[in-house]
Amino acid sequence: MLKTTIIGASGYTGAELALMVHKHPELTLSGLYVSANSLDAGKDIAQLHGKLAGIISQSVEPLVDVDAVAKQSDVVFLATAHQVSHDLAPQFLAQGCQVFDLSGAFRVKKEGFYNQFYGFEHQHAVWLDNAVYGLAEWNAEAIKHSQLIAVPGCYPTASQLAIKPLLDAGLIDKVQWPVINATSGVTGAGRKASMTNSFCEVSLQPYGVFNHRHQPEIASHLGTDVIFTPHLGNFKRGILATITMKLAAGSDAEQVASAFNSAYQSKSAVRLLESALPSIQNVENTPFCDIGWKVQGEHVIVVAAIDNLLKGASSQAMQCLNIHYGFPELTALV
Amino acid sequence: MLKTTIIGASGYTGAELALMVHKHPELTLSGLYVSANSLDAGKDIAQLHGKLAGIISQSVEPLVDVDAVAKQSDVVFLATAHQVSHDLAPQFLAQGCQVFDLSGAFRVKKEGFYNQFYGFEHQHAVWLDNAVYGLAEWNAEAIKHSQLIAVPGCYPTASQLAIKPLLDAGLIDKVQWPVINATSGVTGAGRKASMTNSFCEVSLQPYGVFNHRHQPEIASHLGTDVIFTPHLGNFKRGILATITMKLAAGSDAEQVASAFNSAYQSKSAVRLLESALPSIQNVENTPFCDIGWKVQGEHVIVVAAIDNLLKGASSQAMQCLNIHYGFPELTALV
Amino acid sequence: MLKTTIIGASGYTGAELALMVHKHPELTLSGLYVSANSLDAGKDIAQLHGKLAGIISQSVEPLVDVDAVAKQSDVVFLATAHQVSHDLAPQFLAQGCQVFDLSGAFRVKKEGFYNQFYGFEHQHAVWLDNAVYGLAEWNAEAIKHSQLIAVPGCYPTASQLAIKPLLDAGLIDKVQWPVINATSGVTGAGRKASMTNSFCEVSLQPYGVFNHRHQPEIASHLGTDVIFTPHLGNFKRGILATITMKLAAGSDAEQVASAFNSAYQSKSAVRLLESALPSIQNVENTPFCDIGWKVQGEHVIVVAAIDNLLKGASSQAMQCLNIHYGFPELTALV
Amino acid sequence: MLKTTIIGASGYTGAELALMVHKHPELTLSGLYVSANSLDAGKDIAQLHGKLAGIISQSVEPLVDVDAVAKQSDVVFLATAHQVSHDLAPQFLAQGCQVFDLSGAFRVKKEGFYNQFYGFEHQHAVWLDNAVYGLAEWNAEAIKHSQLIAVPGCYPTASQLAIKPLLDAGLIDKVQWPVINATSGVTGAGRKASMTNSFCEVSLQPYGVFNHRHQPEIASHLGTDVIFTPHLGNFKRGILATITMKLAAGSDAEQVASAFNSAYQSKSAVRLLESALPSIQNVENTPFCDIGWKVQGEHVIVVAAIDNLLKGASSQAMQCLNIHYGFPELTALV
Repeated sequence: MLKTTIIGASGYTGAELALMVHKHPELTLSGLYVSANSLDAGKDIAQLHGKLAGIISQSVEPLVDVDAVAKQSDVVFLATAHQVSHDLAPQFLAQGCQVFDLSGAFRVKKEGFYNQFYGFEHQHAVWLDNAVYGLAEWNAEAIKHSQLIAVPGCYPTASQLAIKPLLDAGLIDKVQWPVINATSGVTGAGRKASMTNSFCEVSLQPYGVFNHRHQPEIASHLGTDVIFTPHLGNFKRGILATITMKLAAGSDAEQVASAFNSAYQSKSAVRLLESALPSIQNVENTPFCDIGWKVQGEHVIVVAAIDNLLKGASSQAMQCLNIHYGFPELTALV
Repeated sequence: MLKTTIIGASGYTGAELALMVHKHPELTLSGLYVSANSLDAGKDIAQLHGKLAGIISQSVEPLVDVDAVAKQSDVVFLATAHQVSHDLAPQFLAQGCQVFDLSGAFRVKKEGFYNQFYGFEHQHAVWLDNAVYGLAEWNAEAIKHSQLIAVPGCYPTASQLAIKPLLDAGLIDKVQWPVINATSGVTGAGRKASMTNSFCEVSLQPYGVFNHRHQPEIASHLGTDVIFTPHLGNFKRGILATITMKLAAGSDAEQVASAFNSAYQSKSAVRLLESALPSIQNVENTPFCDIGWKVQGEHVIVVAAIDNLLKGASSQAMQCLNIHYGFPELTALV
Repeated sequence: MLKTTIIGASGYTGAELALMVHKHPELTLSGLYVSANSLDAGKDIAQLHGKLAGIISQSVEPLVDVDAVAKQSDVVFLATAHQVSHDLAPQFLAQGCQVFDLSGAFRVKKEGFYNQFYGFEHQHAVWLDNAVYGLAEWNAEAIKHSQLIAVPGCYPTASQLAIKPLLDAGLIDKVQWPVINATSGVTGAGRKASMTNSFCEVSLQPYGVFNHRHQPEIASHLGTDVIFTPHLGNFKRGILATITMKLAAGSDAEQVASAFNSAYQSKSAVRLLESALPSIQNVENTPFCDIGWKVQGEHVIVVAAIDNLLKGASSQAMQCLNIHYGFPELTALV
Repeated sequence: MLKTTIIGASGYTGAELALMVHKHPELTLSGLYVSANSLDAGKDIAQLHGKLAGIISQSVEPLVDVDAVAKQSDVVFLATAHQVSHDLAPQFLAQGCQVFDLSGAFRVKKEGFYNQFYGFEHQHAVWLDNAVYGLAEWNAEAIKHSQLIAVPGCYPTASQLAIKPLLDAGLIDKVQWPVINATSGVTGAGRKASMTNSFCEVSLQPYGVFNHRHQPEIASHLGTDVIFTPHLGNFKRGILATITMKLAAGSDAEQVASAFNSAYQSKSAVRLLESALPSIQNVENTPFCDIGWKVQGEHVIVVAAIDNLLKGASSQAMQCLNIHYGFPELTALV
């Protein structure tokens, strides 16, 4: 049994992780932590997330002595803010913990990226270099062997799973940038009070146009530029991404279908829809990415849907853990 | 043209009032104010409430010199917090303004009430005594003649309009207290950020059980005790109140219908439903209170629906203004 | 492994049952059926319920030869319309199958009840007499020994779990009928197209006032009359019931707490909330009934929340199966 | 006073039209009709649309004798199905009525279009030729002089208002087709029962990819090809369209702003947002189209929001009427 610790257990992704660790036959929940000055410190996790009552009863502790926590943990999930992860991950790694970081702190190996998009100077170049990007369907081999997994963001997961099979197969015209329009549920903004997330103010609306930090995450991992326009939707969970691309000359519908099939036929967390198109509802509370597409003339439209808190965060982190340790990929997830 | 000023224009009820003043043929919008330290001060009201753009463009000013504002106003709407209204109303009244207060500050003429339920000592006993409770369908005569109208709360409006005709006609058994179950949209909590109102946390749930300040407001105006259980619903606007009562011995369905008909047949803002029952949707964005009922054996169930921001606040305030000045009751409201 | 068959697999409760059977370590899914003339016959269940894709792939067959199906089944879940269950249950029972019926066909042992409330003459008096009402927390012993379990309706489950501990402990004044106000998500109406369930028409609204068939189901099992007012809410899943009762003379808050604690302290599917009150969100997608309460003076208000498709239907059916066969009560449910 | 008749008064757009006619100082409501075999025939419109109660009480009649109805009407709004409008419009026109058709029957002057996209052969080539496309901000002069106005569809209104100023100013690269991603509220599908529109099934999802009939409507009126991907959103009213375009070589942000300003500075139903981006909420229940945009490098993203039942249907029809008769453009609309 692997002793598993969750840092950032008061948030929505932390709660999902706690449930998964609880269900996992090879993991034991060794500790739940929040930052030392959090008002949630000392509370039972079921008080913070009422749906956990009757399933998990464990107190959320303030994280004070990182080394002591590290010593009692085999595995650490960091469901923390970007800069907090940036500071904590090396400490846990130095103690030999296996780390799955759900923040953006180790995702992009690009000069100046963190200054520009996250507002802080990255201090851990070696770890950034060694981190493996946990896009589970594409990096399984590296995930098996790395001590630090940088789990992708929610929009990047949906977008890359939809684009990568076609791009890697050479079916996409790179001159015309792929256009990604995506809509996220409000949990994507985290568990906190703000006017933007107030029930009375939420209404379908774009945000972060041309300057969302997930654009460079997507572009750098795909190796090609994209236009990415996120929207806030009036629902709690889920992301739907609709992606419009021009096909490379000579590419056709059959090649598109074949690229998707060969990329994902053996991947248990991706469901290819033959004729239907994805909807948020079908992926809510599941670890799946649903992908559907249509081709007409020179264009292809690919649609991907995930639960932003699961395949877009917690279940993908657990999927990476399962891959890393050789457990069946969807253990504790369905 | 009556020069009309709105204090508290940054909130949801303030925005509704501004729209109504704009549409009203006998009113001119003389000023929009917020408290002096509000972050909204100086902004155009259409920036705060995007739906007003293209209709009203007027800056929301910090309220600094009350007397100066009073001098340029014939009518003042106070869409302010309870204690703010308590402090401001007498100042405007002293300058001769006609005041419509949407807060609770002058609604209940009961010893110790404000200490117990609002947490402050009431300082203006004479004004409290002279204030008229603006339940428009019942107090029209007094509304015509009073300088200070205390517009009822949203739950009390729906509840009293549903109960009063039967109670006043002696059809209700007072031994068994009327049971009021009501559900309000989230705008009822005002325009502000809080975890309770966060989109991700809102879900049908009771609150304030046995201790909501609208219980004594309802009970004191009806003259009989009631059990009042409010709920937060997952919608933006509207209140639905379902009220269960025991009939007085000898009362029957015909008397119930007759009591409703004689109370409201000439009232333009109450719609009696003959066979259907009210729904939130039919009253959203309207100044109406829909009332339906069923009788079986010794019991009657009455259901009332209103838009909490309109008949539960702003449109009732305007209805009172129309009554006070002798304008048709729904002027600027439909 | 028990061979388990689901009749009515195209509906929402059928889909939930299929998922549970799939997860259950002691059950194997032997067949999925719909009525012989259903348009869904022949389709894969994952086509009907997209969320099952990647988890279950099994075709939904038309039910033609009941005896043949019975012979290949140890356990049968009837997620069918009332009269269909009424006709099918005896056929499966005669072949020795263990039957869990989610319809109303065997719930109420009362002369004339089915004529009056379900519109058909009950033909199977002996089975009706032998059926055990599957309110899992209260009838465990009988559930262990009966071949036919009549799983309670969704409103009756929430209502009875909230009322029964206090009523049985003699804490409730029966002269004043308990007042049950409950709101259900739209899935309560089943998977079908209708104007009432149209997205554009749904809005919080009461229905079935004084004539809903769950009123006599609740009253007959409690052994006392109640006033039951159901509402349709603008959400998909969940029921919240708010129940107002007068305490019997001499009863107090301590006795109320004690009654709840002794009724449910060993019951894994009921969560008693100490200070908070239930919300729909906390029980969505869970098998739990959350119960909270407040006492003031002579009155008690009890609030219960369940997922209408789970504790109000499918998970309660599975809970009964677990009890019947001696499996841990929440097997396949959390 | 113009005698105004509405055909198709049982639908959502019919109800909105009835309200507008009622509020309009120059119009009188001469008749409300539905098709002769409609189940709604004979009912009061306030029974069909509860929100109209207390405002309009008028019976919805079966349309039997078109000529008789035409003779008592100056103006006819056709809020009817496409083929019904196709058949009726010429009959009303022949009697001299001014006709505003909200269907697609007279919108596209393109050989074979109706066979391909609407499934019927167009029989009225002369009227199709003479019809003016009622995109109010662009065709005012023609609207003034035509007897038949073909009011644009909801998606085409939002899309064209967003694209046309830039395209007409030569700022758009036509080689890379504009990519329109749009999401509509469920009222866009009309007032009817269907599984697709069932409350329990609605969830953000694309539909009609590459084959929605609004694509050729948009493309033919813009004079350039577009990729149009509609989505069904989980809300009742409103459309948000997000449009990604490549700028023509040498075009810049200043030219974009200038094109929008010169197109719409004198247009009362278009609101240009300087820094914010449109949301559904701000346009709900208003006649406005909100437009915002961002430029980066070679790309521009334009976002437009409208109420699909108003600027996307009924209020645009009324705006056309106001233009045609020389009334202020937003009469009866704000």
